Amino acid sequence: MSKLDFILEELVTANRILANEGIVDSFGHVSARHPDKPDHYLLSRARAPERIERGDIVEYKLDGTAIDERGRVPYVERYIHGAIYEARPDVHAVVHNHSPSTIPFGVTGKKLKPLLHMCANIGHEVPVWDSQDKFGDTTLLVSDMAMGRDLAQSLGSRPSALMRGHGATVAGRTVRHAVFISVYLEMGAKLQMQAMQMGDVKFLTPGEVDQIIARVTDFPLNRAWENWARRAGREMQA
Amino acid sequence: MSKLDFILEELVTANRILANEGIVDSFGHVSARHPDKPDHYLLSRARAPERIERGDIVEYKLDGTAIDERGRVPYVERYIHGAIYEARPDVHAVVHNHSPSTIPFGVTGKKLKPLLHMCANIGHEVPVWDSQDKFGDTTLLVSDMAMGRDLAQSLGSRPSALMRGHGATVAGRTVRHAVFISVYLEMGAKLQMQAMQMGDVKFLTPGEVDQIIARVTDFPLNRAWENWARRAGREMQA
Amino acid sequence: MSKLDFILEELVTANRILANEGIVDSFGHVSARHPDKPDHYLLSRARAPERIERGDIVEYKLDGTAIDERGRVPYVERYIHGAIYEARPDVHAVVHNHSPSTIPFGVTGKKLKPLLHMCANIGHEVPVWDSQDKFGDTTLLVSDMAMGRDLAQSLGSRPSALMRGHGATVAGRTVRHAVFISVYLEMGAKLQMQAMQMGDVKFLTPGEVDQIIARVTDFPLNRAWENWARRAGREMQA
Amino acid sequence: MSKLDFILEELVTANRILANEGIVDSFGHVSARHPDKPDHYLLSRARAPERIERGDIVEYKLDGTAIDERGRVPYVERYIHGAIYEARPDVHAVVHNHSPSTIPFGVTGKKLKPLLHMCANIGHEVPVWDSQDKFGDTTLLVSDMAMGRDLAQSLGSRPSALMRGHGATVAGRTVRHAVFISVYLEMGAKLQMQAMQMGDVKFLTPGEVDQIIARVTDFPLNRAWENWARRAGREMQA
Repeated sequence: MSKLDFILEELVTANRILANEGIVDSFGHVSARHPDKPDHYLLSRARAPERIERGDIVEYKLDGTAIDERGRVPYVERYIHGAIYEARPDVHAVVHNHSPSTIPFGVTGKKLKPLLHMCANIGHEVPVWDSQDKFGDTTLLVSDMAMGRDLAQSLGSRPSALMRGHGATVAGRTVRHAVFISVYLEMGAKLQMQAMQMGDVKFLTPGEVDQIIARVTDFPLNRAWENWARRAGREMQA
Repeated sequence: MSKLDFILEELVTANRILANEGIVDSFGHVSARHPDKPDHYLLSRARAPERIERGDIVEYKLDGTAIDERGRVPYVERYIHGAIYEARPDVHAVVHNHSPSTIPFGVTGKKLKPLLHMCANIGHEVPVWDSQDKFGDTTLLVSDMAMGRDLAQSLGSRPSALMRGHGATVAGRTVRHAVFISVYLEMGAKLQMQAMQMGDVKFLTPGEVDQIIARVTDFPLNRAWENWARRAGREMQA
Repeated sequence: MSKLDFILEELVTANRILANEGIVDSFGHVSARHPDKPDHYLLSRARAPERIERGDIVEYKLDGTAIDERGRVPYVERYIHGAIYEARPDVHAVVHNHSPSTIPFGVTGKKLKPLLHMCANIGHEVPVWDSQDKFGDTTLLVSDMAMGRDLAQSLGSRPSALMRGHGATVAGRTVRHAVFISVYLEMGAKLQMQAMQMGDVKFLTPGEVDQIIARVTDFPLNRAWENWARRAGREMQA
Repeated sequence: MSKLDFILEELVTANRILANEGIVDSFGHVSARHPDKPDHYLLSRARAPERIERGDIVEYKLDGTAIDERGRVPYVERYIHGAIYEARPDVHAVVHNHSPSTIPFGVTGKKLKPLLHMCANIGHEVPVWDSQDKFGDTTLLVSDMAMGRDLAQSLGSRPSALMRGHGATVAGRTVRHAVFISVYLEMGAKLQMQAMQMGDVKFLTPGEVDQIIARVTDFPLNRAWENWARRAGREMQA
């Protein structure tokens, strides 16, 4: 199996997992950097993640131009992906979603931070990007490279960023890594909402966050991936 | 396939979707204006949405009189539908439900407003209709045209209205549009409840709401519909 | 089909519905007064509701003595059922459960009252029975007729009562009625918890509650029952 | 069937139940003391609980050394299990999980205590073990016997302990007992979070807790186990 074949199958599985675990609904998307052409990426045509098949996946240049589109309508917000790949050579997969528990953080200014060991992977603190700041009234959709680059700048070197009134974007070193962070971003947000109702929250210390991130090898990612894939009716590739 | 056949199949699918997505329980209903006779509408006999089949759908005049009822018992609250079609020529589908997260807004006077881009479709602010105001103690059911028209007046030109101690009513330009708004009304209500516990909420600006509403073409509605239909065991019609 | 056969099948379906709708977990039970012998009732042996089959149902005298027990171990708390049938000739079915959203009301002294039209069936206000008051430290289980009668007295002529640190008990005129009230007791409790976080709650007026209760004929109960039964893999009996 | 065969099958079922009931996600684990060698225990290789099969289960010495590992990678945190078996001769099964509703208690210092009769089994009050106290910044994982023994000391003679920013650990007299406590620890935590939002909580009295614990024989454990096993696609062993 070629590296490209592997990544295409990974993307189908990633879409199904994100839908099955409640991280995306009928919207949201996940991409991978092309394994042979670092200035191209792979992303489904505009379709609900739960329904995506291999033939839906289109190759794009970083500026969002499709290669061989064949009538497959692109996601309006593909610029999120291109702008992050452009700014972050370390990133090989991007998830954009409307993960429900992250939304209240984006609209209240309350800082989302890791309180559970698995959630260290979301980063020390999750920034909030507000499209109003530079672009004023819009549909909130990241619909060109200018908006994509502004979001990428807000993300900086971090693993995740929230988008006010909209959702979240996650950047990972592999598809499995980006999916893993996305699942624990949702879980961390849900738990922090509950904890904040109860009193002052003891978050992970900076030292704990650093140690955990350093320890997240492919082994735990694969353990979760095997499980999530099977729950979504897919097999884990070797 | 005739336009009528198409709409009848759409209504079966809409009922199944609304049940499967948790927007209706054993009660609630969805209708469509008759495609050939604008002063008639199509609505199931009184049955749980999850169970409805094509043969359950009855044609009604706007005043709620059934055409060819054949023993099929009507919903008591069919007047909701007729009164809205009477007042709103732009409306071709109506959903009435007891969507759980909307109920607390109806009984506390807290304003439900869109805070997530998908939720712009619920309108700038969702009014609350209280049957007590004009009709005093009742079963709260909209059981005649007088009550239906009073609700329609409260709805005005908006896409959705809450009903105190009862539920919500949504008006759309197509069946898919009304179902879409209903799903995001529930989601927006749930998210707003969570956000209000955390602090002051930054809602969408009026300009953002207007831009998003203008942008909701059939394309995103179909993306969600394909997904929801398949989850409910139905296929999307072309 | 005899009346007894009908009731036995109803009880199997009721157990499966209550489990499938999340109203009971591995504990909780539902009984019916014997259709031919008003001083006997029918209740499963001690088994999780989701697993109950017709052969599990045992006939009991009101005092909890089994008729033809054949090694089938009874529920410790069968006295709940006998004591209510003894005190309430109008009652033909009883549900006892640990319905999750009702528990916080039982331990905080906050009054559970109907705020949604369907929830009028729980009664104007749900009393809380506390086993501590008369019996001091116990396992909280209603394990003899003295405790059962004390609970029945707290229930009075109402449709439902909470039990502090334990759960709820519901009395209905038929099996379908008791199941219906149980489902909306859980829903009402969940919605009231949410609404109370938002501000002052406008509950149904006493007049509204009375009108709704008067209107709950078998027709709406059957609509819900058909749906819940099918969701639980059972058919509605004619 | 040998005692060892019985326990191995119990462990497979326990893993599937804990996953199916939402007590573990892709992480967390359950072990049993070896029925013939009290200084050995049985625990799966590092794999998601929902996927575990009998061939995944490895025998370990109390110090975490595998017997006949055959390439099966162990859980980093197996020291939790060994340290508790070492300190507690009464314990024959241990569950470690990241049970979601327990997390907010671990990070806020709010005491988790039983408010529902079934939850008496979690003990009079659940202590919180914080790895920071003795070990400073770590990954929070219990990755050697020193950390395991410190956790075991915090657990003391109790049935359950929370771990700050991490999860919970439960000790039982049988596999079924440990699973039962784990399920009701999650439920109790969820209900207490809700009740605390409503006002002062009346917890079970110490006398009630003692009476309930004394009464939890194998009979109720088996009632729940039969149900949970079947829901998870497994049969209860006789």
